[in-house]
Amino acid sequence: MSEQAKQKNGHLVIIGGGEDRKHDMEILSRFVELSGGASARIVVITAASQIADEMWQIYDGVFGTLGVKERAHCEITSREDANSEDFVRKVGEADGIFMTGGDQKRLLALIGGTAMDAEMHNALKVRGATIGGTSAGASAMSGHMLAQGRTDLLPEKGSVSLGAGLGFLHRVVVDQHFSERQRLSRLLSVVAQNPYLQGIGIDEDTALIIERGVGIEVVGEGAVTVVDGRSMSTNVAEIKDRATPELIDVRLHLLPAGSKYSLPDGQEQTGKRVPPQLLDFLENVTKRTTLS
Amino acid sequence: MSEQAKQKNGHLVIIGGGEDRKHDMEILSRFVELSGGASARIVVITAASQIADEMWQIYDGVFGTLGVKERAHCEITSREDANSEDFVRKVGEADGIFMTGGDQKRLLALIGGTAMDAEMHNALKVRGATIGGTSAGASAMSGHMLAQGRTDLLPEKGSVSLGAGLGFLHRVVVDQHFSERQRLSRLLSVVAQNPYLQGIGIDEDTALIIERGVGIEVVGEGAVTVVDGRSMSTNVAEIKDRATPELIDVRLHLLPAGSKYSLPDGQEQTGKRVPPQLLDFLENVTKRTTLS
Repeated sequence: MSEQAKQKNGHLVIIGGGEDRKHDMEILSRFVELSGGASARIVVITAASQIADEMWQIYDGVFGTLGVKERAHCEITSREDANSEDFVRKVGEADGIFMTGGDQKRLLALIGGTAMDAEMHNALKVRGATIGGTSAGASAMSGHMLAQGRTDLLPEKGSVSLGAGLGFLHRVVVDQHFSERQRLSRLLSVVAQNPYLQGIGIDEDTALIIERGVGIEVVGEGAVTVVDGRSMSTNVAEIKDRATPELIDVRLHLLPAGSKYSLPDGQEQTGKRVPPQLLDFLENVTKRTTLS
Repeated sequence: MSEQAKQKNGHLVIIGGGEDRKHDMEILSRFVELSGGASARIVVITAASQIADEMWQIYDGVFGTLGVKERAHCEITSREDANSEDFVRKVGEADGIFMTGGDQKRLLALIGGTAMDAEMHNALKVRGATIGGTSAGASAMSGHMLAQGRTDLLPEKGSVSLGAGLGFLHRVVVDQHFSERQRLSRLLSVVAQNPYLQGIGIDEDTALIIERGVGIEVVGEGAVTVVDGRSMSTNVAEIKDRATPELIDVRLHLLPAGSKYSLPDGQEQTGKRVPPQLLDFLENVTKRTTLS
């Protein structure tokens, strides 16, 4: 299969924040490579950040260093910007779309439901483009988005609130800076009350790369932690707000950098055999959702 | 069933360190109550600590405040002490035996395999006494003892070493100060390489109380975390030392203070229905092991 055809699947590069931008830039160069390499057109969406221009300067520099010539900034400060013909066209022509860190609520308030949002779905699902996001840009990718929540020593009922994210992934919720900020208890708080969602915790300088219909890979320095509460037994419905729930039988998967898994019926068998207990997660995140 | 008969089962009071010794003293007063209340004879084993006398002063004060009149210190600085008639008799007459914090390796080096060790097993299993331990005294209770290990952000192969503990519990390993010192990754390091063992992480000012043959209860301020790797799939055998293993399908249970479970066929049904996924853990830790 040619590189061209391979790209048609569409990739998500979901980064836990703090990715290396000075040394080997492993994750960002993978993002560039998946976007088509030096000839790729890359747009940077800085809408999550209050210091959009500064963010643009940083990523413009990095992508330039990585050989990308066609780089564009979608500087969005209003929903009108996110509906403007100019920016929608830029996204419509991009091979790689990168969302910076900042605040995922700000990002969604500005672009959620706009023409640019629709164009991003089109890019991923129809044109097979690559969509990357770090920190807030990572959390924004799922349909149910971790909007905010305290990090306490133990999970607490009602301590985390969800919002509506971009929906490139479903039935999951993404948290970032995961091991560094000790956020397992926060992710368990989400899963305790929303067992419908599988929790994905991504460490700093670590990315979960998803190729739609094919498989996943973990790259970088840390690991990806998955918590699955679907088999769980819990008293969360009965306890008071801020109390710690009983959680019995939460399934936990730790996928260190270097882990790679392909769907058994994927187009390519690049990854190793999938442990059966991970298959369901793999099928869910690689699902080819349609434009709807 | 009378209080007298009830005590025959034998209790373990396994405390994650930092138990309250000034205010409500919830955990230590439960220890006293389970030992028989004010009329109980309580001995304190300070062998884990380098400041044995200081430790004795503290617990002598606490148990005195809680109304216990017969309090004794087993001040052990050599294995000869732990084989001495005087101390063995004290343990042999005790209704409650309490092991302080310090270093569990020191504790085991001094009392492991001595006449006092044997007398403690007799106290628990034949006389139905109560054995309490906090911090190092908690870790020392299991047959495989967490001897030492770094706490890193992620689990690492070969980063934790086990030793031989007192063996009041089997097929488990106990860690303490659990949430406060963010020790899940350390416990996962143990379980990754020793899936035979279920990991028990106990928070500060929190105790796992085990009544042999009957059930368990969590008291205090935090929670008890159980990690079970028996269904796990992992690459730990193939990776290098210090690398982070892939862990698929570790089962995690979070039992907050207030949790109470009885064996379905226990002598008393004081706890609520046991979630089926917890039954195996419950059966293991409440097992009436014999003197052997």
